Amino acid sequence: MTRNSDCVFCKIVSVEIPASVVYEDESLICFLDHNPLSPGHLLIVTREHYVKLTELPSDVSSKVGSVLPLAGRALLEVTGAKGFNVLCNEGAVAGQLVQHVHFHLIPRFEGDKLGYRWVAGSYEEGKAAQLTDAFQQAFTASS
Amino acid sequence: MTRNSDCVFCKIVSVEIPASVVYEDESLICFLDHNPLSPGHLLIVTREHYVKLTELPSDVSSKVGSVLPLAGRALLEVTGAKGFNVLCNEGAVAGQLVQHVHFHLIPRFEGDKLGYRWVAGSYEEGKAAQLTDAFQQAFTASS
Repeated sequence: MTRNSDCVFCKIVSVEIPASVVYEDESLICFLDHNPLSPGHLLIVTREHYVKLTELPSDVSSKVGSVLPLAGRALLEVTGAKGFNVLCNEGAVAGQLVQHVHFHLIPRFEGDKLGYRWVAGSYEEGKAAQLTDAFQQAFTASS
Repeated sequence: MTRNSDCVFCKIVSVEIPASVVYEDESLICFLDHNPLSPGHLLIVTREHYVKLTELPSDVSSKVGSVLPLAGRALLEVTGAKGFNVLCNEGAVAGQLVQHVHFHLIPRFEGDKLGYRWVAGSYEEGKAAQLTDAFQQAFTASS
């Protein structure tokens, strides 16, 4: 099991630091965010230390995926929220603060002023086709 | 294969509506968001029609999880972004606009003014423990 002795989430996994753990299995733990954006804000964290989502082996990331519906149903039941956001931030530019991959589940309520800043654009002529070609090559090369 | 004849993502899956598809497998397709928050904004969509993440069978949601690192690596390579957000909105209150479960991968760049509105709070005495108990019961009941 890979750990990082300076990592707060590794310390939660190893029970050096207490946390409000609500679910755990062989790959993951899920606990209440200590500084919630709304009541019932959950974090899903890998037991092993990986800094980024893009470093995760696919079997571990598939475990994260498999637990998301379960965690979401629990969240709706417990909090009474009508919806939630799942969020994973990769990299400082994207808001990643703890250097151990984690997924947020954020309960949402009317008028809560949370959510993603949504300023949608569009592609200039030809740009989407160019990106599509590049993405198809990148997916093929790394799969 | 479950489809909804009024659903724009089902129409993309069945190629009734064109899209810039960059990856597909037996469970999922991934394509460029037509109205990107930033260039290279991707959507990962289930082939079958499920409205919400909480409706997904765990084998389908695990497929979504397994493809996230691959899609993230392709995104970083193609866009030159130093990070990205993964986002899934469940419910209108959480910003879900298309009623077919989908995950956004949003490339992030310095000064882009995107990201999640982050106003963190804290729990009153006893509240976290109460929520933890309720969550533990909810996870146990539905797993």
